[in-house]
Amino acid sequence: MVCSVHVCFTPSLFPLYKNNESIVVVIDVLRATSAICTAFDNGVEKIIPVATVDEARALKAQGFLAAAERDGMIVDGFDFGNSPYSYLDASVKGKTIALTTTNGTKAIHAAKDAAQLVIGSFLNKQALADYLIKQNKSIIMLCAGWKDKFNMEDTLFAGALTQLLVDSNKFSTDCDSAKAAMLLFSNAKNDLYAFLGDSSHRQRLGRLSLEKDIRFCLQTNQCSSIPILKGNELVKL
Amino acid sequence: MVCSVHVCFTPSLFPLYKNNESIVVVIDVLRATSAICTAFDNGVEKIIPVATVDEARALKAQGFLAAAERDGMIVDGFDFGNSPYSYLDASVKGKTIALTTTNGTKAIHAAKDAAQLVIGSFLNKQALADYLIKQNKSIIMLCAGWKDKFNMEDTLFAGALTQLLVDSNKFSTDCDSAKAAMLLFSNAKNDLYAFLGDSSHRQRLGRLSLEKDIRFCLQTNQCSSIPILKGNELVKL
Repeated sequence: MVCSVHVCFTPSLFPLYKNNESIVVVIDVLRATSAICTAFDNGVEKIIPVATVDEARALKAQGFLAAAERDGMIVDGFDFGNSPYSYLDASVKGKTIALTTTNGTKAIHAAKDAAQLVIGSFLNKQALADYLIKQNKSIIMLCAGWKDKFNMEDTLFAGALTQLLVDSNKFSTDCDSAKAAMLLFSNAKNDLYAFLGDSSHRQRLGRLSLEKDIRFCLQTNQCSSIPILKGNELVKL
Repeated sequence: MVCSVHVCFTPSLFPLYKNNESIVVVIDVLRATSAICTAFDNGVEKIIPVATVDEARALKAQGFLAAAERDGMIVDGFDFGNSPYSYLDASVKGKTIALTTTNGTKAIHAAKDAAQLVIGSFLNKQALADYLIKQNKSIIMLCAGWKDKFNMEDTLFAGALTQLLVDSNKFSTDCDSAKAAMLLFSNAKNDLYAFLGDSSHRQRLGRLSLEKDIRFCLQTNQCSSIPILKGNELVKL
């Protein structure tokens, strides 16, 4: 069976794409989904994605580790934001972490009723592709974007993953967004960091001196974890 | 003064982009905005864009020529749809035409309160660019898309026009959608027809035997007209 792939550029367009059968891949490359993949590879047990800072604060009051990012910065009073480096520390091993971010957790909430919701980033690209190719299900790639607008980095990853799926011959696409994403990735793939040099979000993070985070998030195939949503919690598949 | 350019991929995202100052360029290359440019170049006096078939029917009952297209086909009982060839006939000269289309007139309605709304297509590309470069205003390119989803052909024209504006040094952009559109156009420009060969809408129109229309709409700089919205009517600038 050949399954379909669609790319949805922002959460606000997701109602046009969603259905009851497809696996949804949530993508927020800079930095939420890269941080989540890193966390699971480093032994975090569960991540509870919440939409608001207040919900994260309530879970922190209950004793959870809590991470909150807004506009690229850690929210006051929280343990950390969405830098993947935060999740490389040995102290997170075996822990449950409450997480809210500007775009990533919003995208997770938009798609929480999907047949299956998994988390994608350049870090777990091949592991995720290998998994998806075995499922015989249609795929919707949901880019978190920036405040409901299209962004370049999530689209590039959606294009990279779509290309792997199509190349397996188990998938095809008649979706213009997916075709555009693959073409943009083919233009960018030789040097993602340079290509993203003048993208809006890389500039935004660059102003916050997060160049090190950006380089980390653009590494390919450093993680084997496939984070998956079970109920209200992300766990390792 | 250097002005900004933004590209909005679909009418459903327009609320994220709109403001009171910008000129909005509405783009529905296959075929509504190509047909509108053709009509004005061929002497049509006014086009009344309406959102629904019922409104178009009411105007037809009042004696106007009326055009209605849905899903690529002329709606039963109407004089024509949105084939540009319909507007090359001598009988339309000096006439007012009521028009409703699947995507194009919806985009016009989404942006009807803009400071200025003009109509763009490959056919009037250079004339429109020359005009916009003289205005010292920010620009939002509003792609009609297909039923609120991204489509390739409108994005390619948005990229082509953005490139002309940026090349004039009167405009710059920090909009990822605009950058993606310019890059996609640079990949496509040597042969737009071939590039769009497997795009969703070219395939849709191809099944309806509208290849001739597609080739017509992908011609560059055949029209000098810049259609502009005045009140509820499009007229020639």
